[in-house]
Amino acid sequence: MTLRARIGEVVESTRFQWMIIGVIVVNAITLGAETSPALVAKHGDLLSTIDHLALAVFVAELAARLYAFGWRFFRDPWNVFDFVIVAVALLPAAGPLSVLRSLRILRALRLVAMVPSMRRVVTALVKSVPGLISLTGLLMLLLYIGGVIASNLFGDSGDPRFGDLGSTLLTLFQITTGDGWSDVMRDLMVHQPLAWIFFLCYLMVGTFTMLNLFIAVVCSAMESDVQHLPAPRAATHDDLLLQEVRALRDEVRAMRQNA
Amino acid sequence: MTLRARIGEVVESTRFQWMIIGVIVVNAITLGAETSPALVAKHGDLLSTIDHLALAVFVAELAARLYAFGWRFFRDPWNVFDFVIVAVALLPAAGPLSVLRSLRILRALRLVAMVPSMRRVVTALVKSVPGLISLTGLLMLLLYIGGVIASNLFGDSGDPRFGDLGSTLLTLFQITTGDGWSDVMRDLMVHQPLAWIFFLCYLMVGTFTMLNLFIAVVCSAMESDVQHLPAPRAATHDDLLLQEVRALRDEVRAMRQNA
Amino acid sequence: MTLRARIGEVVESTRFQWMIIGVIVVNAITLGAETSPALVAKHGDLLSTIDHLALAVFVAELAARLYAFGWRFFRDPWNVFDFVIVAVALLPAAGPLSVLRSLRILRALRLVAMVPSMRRVVTALVKSVPGLISLTGLLMLLLYIGGVIASNLFGDSGDPRFGDLGSTLLTLFQITTGDGWSDVMRDLMVHQPLAWIFFLCYLMVGTFTMLNLFIAVVCSAMESDVQHLPAPRAATHDDLLLQEVRALRDEVRAMRQNA
Amino acid sequence: MTLRARIGEVVESTRFQWMIIGVIVVNAITLGAETSPALVAKHGDLLSTIDHLALAVFVAELAARLYAFGWRFFRDPWNVFDFVIVAVALLPAAGPLSVLRSLRILRALRLVAMVPSMRRVVTALVKSVPGLISLTGLLMLLLYIGGVIASNLFGDSGDPRFGDLGSTLLTLFQITTGDGWSDVMRDLMVHQPLAWIFFLCYLMVGTFTMLNLFIAVVCSAMESDVQHLPAPRAATHDDLLLQEVRALRDEVRAMRQNA
Repeated sequence: MTLRARIGEVVESTRFQWMIIGVIVVNAITLGAETSPALVAKHGDLLSTIDHLALAVFVAELAARLYAFGWRFFRDPWNVFDFVIVAVALLPAAGPLSVLRSLRILRALRLVAMVPSMRRVVTALVKSVPGLISLTGLLMLLLYIGGVIASNLFGDSGDPRFGDLGSTLLTLFQITTGDGWSDVMRDLMVHQPLAWIFFLCYLMVGTFTMLNLFIAVVCSAMESDVQHLPAPRAATHDDLLLQEVRALRDEVRAMRQNA
Repeated sequence: MTLRARIGEVVESTRFQWMIIGVIVVNAITLGAETSPALVAKHGDLLSTIDHLALAVFVAELAARLYAFGWRFFRDPWNVFDFVIVAVALLPAAGPLSVLRSLRILRALRLVAMVPSMRRVVTALVKSVPGLISLTGLLMLLLYIGGVIASNLFGDSGDPRFGDLGSTLLTLFQITTGDGWSDVMRDLMVHQPLAWIFFLCYLMVGTFTMLNLFIAVVCSAMESDVQHLPAPRAATHDDLLLQEVRALRDEVRAMRQNA
Repeated sequence: MTLRARIGEVVESTRFQWMIIGVIVVNAITLGAETSPALVAKHGDLLSTIDHLALAVFVAELAARLYAFGWRFFRDPWNVFDFVIVAVALLPAAGPLSVLRSLRILRALRLVAMVPSMRRVVTALVKSVPGLISLTGLLMLLLYIGGVIASNLFGDSGDPRFGDLGSTLLTLFQITTGDGWSDVMRDLMVHQPLAWIFFLCYLMVGTFTMLNLFIAVVCSAMESDVQHLPAPRAATHDDLLLQEVRALRDEVRAMRQNA
Repeated sequence: MTLRARIGEVVESTRFQWMIIGVIVVNAITLGAETSPALVAKHGDLLSTIDHLALAVFVAELAARLYAFGWRFFRDPWNVFDFVIVAVALLPAAGPLSVLRSLRILRALRLVAMVPSMRRVVTALVKSVPGLISLTGLLMLLLYIGGVIASNLFGDSGDPRFGDLGSTLLTLFQITTGDGWSDVMRDLMVHQPLAWIFFLCYLMVGTFTMLNLFIAVVCSAMESDVQHLPAPRAATHDDLLLQEVRALRDEVRAMRQNA
């Protein structure tokens, strides 16, 4: 058994994977603890040491898997996911990239890749995305059209929520989620009493499209369900019938040859 | 090949359609840019030139398609849609019609007509509308009845949200969407402590009807699904059985004639 | 043909029903107009005359239908519905019953009984109610339990939204609909920092139960769908097969008797 | 008949169960009444006497059932549920345990165990939980990751809603339910104009996962539905066919033996 195969065996073993899960959880907890200034003042060194240790473990694990599996490693999208997460953590997090420091917690997403039941859930989520692209595109087109119209109609109202196209798009997105749309409308209606026409039209069209987006998700989930489930039962019954009829035909044929 | 046929071929070609899609996208972007006073001050002439050019392209394209297909052009509802959008853009947008200027962005909806996958989505959306007319009518009837009752009960409360029938209907629509209904109710309950009875009844009936509207949409979407999907499999199996039984009957008949 | 039968025929005729629909719509509009003090000041006499005329028409129509159909009239629940609506309108609307005046608009609900497509929708809505009684009872039990617990925990906080059991139940209902629950919680957390535990538990249990109530509605709607739709197709096919097999059996029986 | 069997019979009798339901309802009402300081001042002794009496009845009933059924009593999870509810009520509710006093109303949940239709509903609810564990775990992981990122990004903004990790998690949970998310975002955007990027990403991912959680619940409910419902009808029809074919085969066999 080569070293490569032996490392591959270790890396795939349940015990090793539980250890990695443990490191991910501990790391997630220390990263959570680092958000508290009080804890950082007291145990800052300990926390950052654990963080570095965890990162070292992840790098070593990835290196081992890369060595054991070679280029095949990148065929599994979950491995690519692990690789990107760890690679990002190695980038220098200074200057304009300092926001990357707060993204270190994304390492906790590796849990998803390690726990099979979560892996299945996320795979199902990702698979349902392509069927939604057209409807999402349509929603974004409606948002853009609504944004340009609202900018033209309400841009002069002095309301900062319709100050420029960006703010307007954000406000329309808020309205689509139904959060506080009536406050936005009433504030505008003080100066533009007909603003409600735009809001009603936008809410109707937007909500109806959203509702259909929702149904599309449900339907695609159902379809796969419908195709898998009821087939076996019916098949068994029908097969029984078919066997019976075929046996009957054989019997008649035999009788005919005897005659 | 006549000129008419050649123009029809050009107009239907993939390259031409991609060009039109390009013009639509560029036009949508310039119309978005026109919402920014700063950009208009700097590049106003350029933006309006592009806008006029895009309109010219749309008019020319429509003229070419009208010439190539004649009256058959109007048989496809998507063509009628294109025609209306462009015709509206040619109306003089002055005086009371100045609101039409902000509707120019509706040209971006032509994208829907150009991209097949979006076309399919919108066709499905439009097809699900007729099945919802009864329930929508019921909801509007409930809204009107609720509006008249609320006007009678709360019209004297001095709350501008129940000032006249129009405001009351708008407020009830807001309550139906669930946005800030408790604020509206609490403000009223200061003077009319029993207002909650109306709100609870209205929310129950309205939400229950909405929920059923939703289910009606889901069900109609499912139905078409159910009818398309499992039929072929079952049919194949049953056909097999039917063939078998018929073959058996032929055999018995042959035997009987021999006897 | 007796007078009774002739009246029955008139009352059931399409033309008569359209006339009644017209009276209902006109009455609904005048009742809407009566909510405007300006219109009442100007045309108050006209509006109340139309209202009385409409009521007279309804009473006459009901009397005619009662005479024509006798006690069978009350077998159709839609007739009972019409009867109650009109009877309530005849009650003296004075003193404590003055609220009944604002319920006159409920006559507009007669439209539902007159238009067949709406009738079908409401019948479907009403039929889905019995299946939801258990879950609704459970939700109300949860609401009551949550209300008593919240009254005990937050009753001393001085927040009027938890002042007595009634207010608390109303506030919890508001939280169940998800409207502004975070404001309620944050206000309480100023004095009782652990209030979030109650809110999280209540939201989880309440929302999960609501979600299941929703699913129960969808499922019951689906069930009837599933039972109605695919049956005919399958039945036709299976019947064909059954006929074929029976014909075969007859043939074999005939052959056996000949032998 | 032993004493044990006779007690078992009494305890299982419909009349006895209706009496217990009565005691539960009366107890729930008095516990509700105890939330009113006015009522406690007036009838406090009566209310607490009824409360003690009800508890005594529950203890006696449980003792009787324990005596009658022995250890089998604990095999039914509903009995365990009853036992825990009553046992908690017997704990001394003083000092740190005073919150247990407000949990006495949980006894009203015994109604669920007594009424068969509610029992079925709750059993169905509980059964649908295991299938949701993975998705709920994923949502909690997303919440934690979002909380750590938001703490890092907005912790210095001075907004108390992002003061520490606990507050941040609570705020993100609020955003996931869609309640007032735009207020939270706009307050932050005064100082951190790019805060909308985080909110949009979080809303998209969170809502999409929630939507799928919802669909998972619907699907699992449907599955059991689909498996139970259409079987009987089809079976009857298919059985008819199978009987017919078997009878035919018997006839042919008989004919063959005669020949």
